[in-house]
Amino acid sequence: MGLRKDQTRARILDAAYEAFWRSGFSRTNVDGIAARARLTKRTLYAHFRSKDDLLAAVLEHQSELTRARMAEIDASLTNTRNGLIDSLFSQLAAWQTRQRRFAGSGFTRLAAELADMPGHPARAIAARHKLWVERWYAQRLRKVGVTQADAKARQIMLLIEGSMSLVVIHGDRDYFTAAAKAAKRLL
Amino acid sequence: MGLRKDQTRARILDAAYEAFWRSGFSRTNVDGIAARARLTKRTLYAHFRSKDDLLAAVLEHQSELTRARMAEIDASLTNTRNGLIDSLFSQLAAWQTRQRRFAGSGFTRLAAELADMPGHPARAIAARHKLWVERWYAQRLRKVGVTQADAKARQIMLLIEGSMSLVVIHGDRDYFTAAAKAAKRLL
Repeated sequence: MGLRKDQTRARILDAAYEAFWRSGFSRTNVDGIAARARLTKRTLYAHFRSKDDLLAAVLEHQSELTRARMAEIDASLTNTRNGLIDSLFSQLAAWQTRQRRFAGSGFTRLAAELADMPGHPARAIAARHKLWVERWYAQRLRKVGVTQADAKARQIMLLIEGSMSLVVIHGDRDYFTAAAKAAKRLL
Repeated sequence: MGLRKDQTRARILDAAYEAFWRSGFSRTNVDGIAARARLTKRTLYAHFRSKDDLLAAVLEHQSELTRARMAEIDASLTNTRNGLIDSLFSQLAAWQTRQRRFAGSGFTRLAAELADMPGHPARAIAARHKLWVERWYAQRLRKVGVTQADAKARQIMLLIEGSMSLVVIHGDRDYFTAAAKAAKRLL
């Protein structure tokens, strides 16, 4: 019973992620998510009280997945500054290639979409996630001997966010290359 | 008659800008724009053939406004590298302060929203606009004696886009400051 419940929950999360990611938060409705998950709305509401709760759960889940993926990168990273930067940006480029349509970071888009709701729980999760990533960069930088690792991690964060936006806009991966080059210069 | 027609057109563009900016392209419908402009849908369609045409006109108009604003900055800029960078980022911070809700660049958000429609005319306008801005940076950098101005302009572009996203996410203007500092180091 517990397992089945978990599976249903996972199915709802997958369907919701797909829908939010494709259409944004506001354009997505719970009926569509239930239909996509091949469940009744009643079942969906047995797992999540509201669309807001569902969005929060989707983001927490995505954040966990990203963090797990980053922990894996961690182990395979080279131990030099340039190796670290190359690894980050080649991961980003590989992620972009895997998408049928690349729209950049879902967390970033969500924060923009909910710009008039600074107190929305989803925004807090998005901010916490991005801060986690920034701190992870700082940790890694410290390990390869970079001083002022917190400030440098923030600069890398800026370049990564900027490159995602500009690759979305131009469809030109040179923005990843340019960002990696800038990051190396800054370290 | 010509003047009146222009005024009506301007009213539609203002209403459409406000609506697209607030709700995104897909969530906005032509009925809402007509109502906001206090016009009939029939009148609106006498000026614009479709929602897509209207979006294209709004973006062209915004691009013109931005370019005019940047031309003004131009004249008042100091003639040093640091002065140029400070000026760019303080303009950005001032723009953010003026917004009731800051959601970053409308062009960037639109490109992400239309990620599955790379051939959409609005995306071409957004890309052209961003490229215009990048080239304007390159020109300005050249004037203050920066070598490899094209590559440096691209790096500044990355930092500006990244700082907008991260200020939206965290509501923390330190990302503008950090981006300006990185830009100065890169020049």
